[in-house]
Amino acid sequence: MDGDTKTMTFLQELQDEPATLDDILISCRATLKYAIKTAHPRYFNQLSTGLDMVGLAADWLTSTANTNMFTYEVAPVFVLLEYVTLKKMREIIGWPDGRGDGIFSPGGAISNMYAMLLARFKMFPEVKEKGMSSVPRLVAFTSEHSHFSIKKGAAALGIGTESVICIKVDESGKMIPADLERRILEAKQKGFVPFFVSATAGTTVYGAFDPLIAISDVCKKYNVWMHVDGAWGGSLLMSRRHRWKLDGVDRANSVTWNPHKMMSVPLQCSALLVREEGLMQNCNQMHACYLFQQDKHYDLSYDTGDKALQCGRHVDIFKLWLMWRAKGTIGFEAQIDKCLELSEYLYNKIKDREGYEMVFDGKPQHTNVCFWYLPPGIRYMEDKEERKKHLHKVAPVIKARMMEYGTTMVSYQPQGDKVNFFRMVISNPAATFEDIDFLIEEIERLGQDL
Amino acid sequence: MDGDTKTMTFLQELQDEPATLDDILISCRATLKYAIKTAHPRYFNQLSTGLDMVGLAADWLTSTANTNMFTYEVAPVFVLLEYVTLKKMREIIGWPDGRGDGIFSPGGAISNMYAMLLARFKMFPEVKEKGMSSVPRLVAFTSEHSHFSIKKGAAALGIGTESVICIKVDESGKMIPADLERRILEAKQKGFVPFFVSATAGTTVYGAFDPLIAISDVCKKYNVWMHVDGAWGGSLLMSRRHRWKLDGVDRANSVTWNPHKMMSVPLQCSALLVREEGLMQNCNQMHACYLFQQDKHYDLSYDTGDKALQCGRHVDIFKLWLMWRAKGTIGFEAQIDKCLELSEYLYNKIKDREGYEMVFDGKPQHTNVCFWYLPPGIRYMEDKEERKKHLHKVAPVIKARMMEYGTTMVSYQPQGDKVNFFRMVISNPAATFEDIDFLIEEIERLGQDL
Repeated sequence: MDGDTKTMTFLQELQDEPATLDDILISCRATLKYAIKTAHPRYFNQLSTGLDMVGLAADWLTSTANTNMFTYEVAPVFVLLEYVTLKKMREIIGWPDGRGDGIFSPGGAISNMYAMLLARFKMFPEVKEKGMSSVPRLVAFTSEHSHFSIKKGAAALGIGTESVICIKVDESGKMIPADLERRILEAKQKGFVPFFVSATAGTTVYGAFDPLIAISDVCKKYNVWMHVDGAWGGSLLMSRRHRWKLDGVDRANSVTWNPHKMMSVPLQCSALLVREEGLMQNCNQMHACYLFQQDKHYDLSYDTGDKALQCGRHVDIFKLWLMWRAKGTIGFEAQIDKCLELSEYLYNKIKDREGYEMVFDGKPQHTNVCFWYLPPGIRYMEDKEERKKHLHKVAPVIKARMMEYGTTMVSYQPQGDKVNFFRMVISNPAATFEDIDFLIEEIERLGQDL
Repeated sequence: MDGDTKTMTFLQELQDEPATLDDILISCRATLKYAIKTAHPRYFNQLSTGLDMVGLAADWLTSTANTNMFTYEVAPVFVLLEYVTLKKMREIIGWPDGRGDGIFSPGGAISNMYAMLLARFKMFPEVKEKGMSSVPRLVAFTSEHSHFSIKKGAAALGIGTESVICIKVDESGKMIPADLERRILEAKQKGFVPFFVSATAGTTVYGAFDPLIAISDVCKKYNVWMHVDGAWGGSLLMSRRHRWKLDGVDRANSVTWNPHKMMSVPLQCSALLVREEGLMQNCNQMHACYLFQQDKHYDLSYDTGDKALQCGRHVDIFKLWLMWRAKGTIGFEAQIDKCLELSEYLYNKIKDREGYEMVFDGKPQHTNVCFWYLPPGIRYMEDKEERKKHLHKVAPVIKARMMEYGTTMVSYQPQGDKVNFFRMVISNPAATFEDIDFLIEEIERLGQDL
């Protein structure tokens, strides 16, 4: 049996009998061999890339400690580290003295769902006991470029996707606050109750930052919870050069911020930060006395488990905390600034280059650079519709070839009436100018015959 | 600065400047020093204990691969391993040819929430778009000894905790099917719609197994989704000696089963198994084209991310899969059987021992052994109320002393009108008869003066 045949068999049925240690090692090697090299500096496919050695060591230590975040008694150090780290993140957001609350959750979608849950509870605490049938029809607002988790959360929470109203964006993908106000008024006229606005700081495709100050004015005027989904863009708060893009974030009631994206913390590490203290606890607690005994000999405020949706909760804090210690805030700042610099380099390189068209004008706000590559055969097509039809098929073929050659990976997608385009993102501090140069050459090499 | 002072300072504010490598190592050592030794054979505090070396290695490999379960293109091997493992688990449940669906989720509470979400969608698919206001009042049923996540899920999903009806249990903690039927009829008479029954296979405190066959008959009769929360007890399906306790599990519509508990897989590893194929996808999908492109060059059925509530999803499969390879099914069976043998040993040892009272009669069904230790001073108190009052304070003090001495850890709680009692559980295959002997001696040593 040759290596590859042996490899393929490692996916066979799980057996009654144990495998040999040799077999186990073959499985491990094959798993790594066929794994996608997400740490490679030419892997640009997702918002989470790279592999930080301190973060990895911290994750290994976490696995070894093998415990659960629900009570202080089983995770004393991790509970305290979560406490100090969330406080620091709230300070960086700009909430006075870092006051407020928060939790590390299994990903940005769940963090966003928490925010929606809290907003609903804040306005109608009776929903917890009585359910949605006890309240008027609630409506939420988010931009048409926002992450799909807002709708997913609304579906799960019994609000319904039709009650998520999508607000128009401008050419560069930012929510238009005037449209938000118009749609809020429209909803109120119908007798619906606006309860939640999710602004996005760093949209998934364009990397756009919604105008938070203007949005906060609208939220304040109509007394609506303001959430900022900064899963992708929140980390720019660590950069003195770029944090202005989130001006107004301190006015939010809640913020999602995923250090596993732009800060290269190993997966998963997503924080939800909440301005009001105590709300999460009131919203989610069920007082299970078999887990959260009230007659223990330590300060029970450290038993944070009952404010979570989860019971057992994975320790996601240590890798972030240890990386922060190892780099300092300035270390995170430097790596974020560098990624933004690389994306600007890419943008400058292709914006006037023959065969490229930018999806929208202007410098990238985040590291997202959205563009079409037009192979020579398409470049001068006169029939616009024909050209569009051809162009739509270019990115998928180039991407498939990238994967077959194994040289690089970059994402593509259509958006609205725009046919498939590449969305470059850079979040790996190991990426270099040469890697950007390579990407351009590789796209041209793989796409020129299309 | 001495070691401990230095240790305490490692919890200080996160700094702008990087720490030295020495400081980082001090932080790591201190974190491990003050961590709870959850792998210690005398740590009996939670349902998840122990540390399997193959599982740990697999978790380290997972961290190193640092990827996400949402698409096949970024996690080809892990997606396939999840597929074969879920199929195997469904076969073990007893569904024909292992058909059905499933997902690894961040813990049993979320798995249970998925089940409730699916049950609702199955009965009223319009909830996804229109929310709970489009449907009649739904009610769910679970035993009064069930896990708090059922209520937590109902609160989050907009169903409301008052719509979770708690069914009576018998003396040993098993749901009484006749009471379930009575409460279903009562709800229907009020015009409510019963949509979900969560039976528990292995309750948290007593380790009781609800009678699944009788419950399934009731569910079938009233056309209600039957969920089995086997987060704790599901693993007994791996044991030929003990799997009869879950007889009827194959009649369930969904099953929660946490390999991170009784199978000692490192945290977290929780599976939700679903009998109907395609339902999860229909319930949760949002068709985000920037993540789930429809024109890729591979079989898109492997892009499983859109059936999840999460967007990014941590890789929890590899540690389970590799352990299964290394032990075989018979290896898991042996370690589960051993833990149950230890708990029977404990039960036999204390059931007639002076100073002990069992919380309920009969041999343990799972590894839970629930008992009071009565220090000599309480043992012969005549005033029953006075005795109860004193007894309530015994377990917390003994537990606090265990933690101060650092010798062992075991959980306690009250339940209904029963004052604080110890709940022993054994899930660590490293535990021995000597460790059980030690526990008894230690409880007596620490509690005799109370």
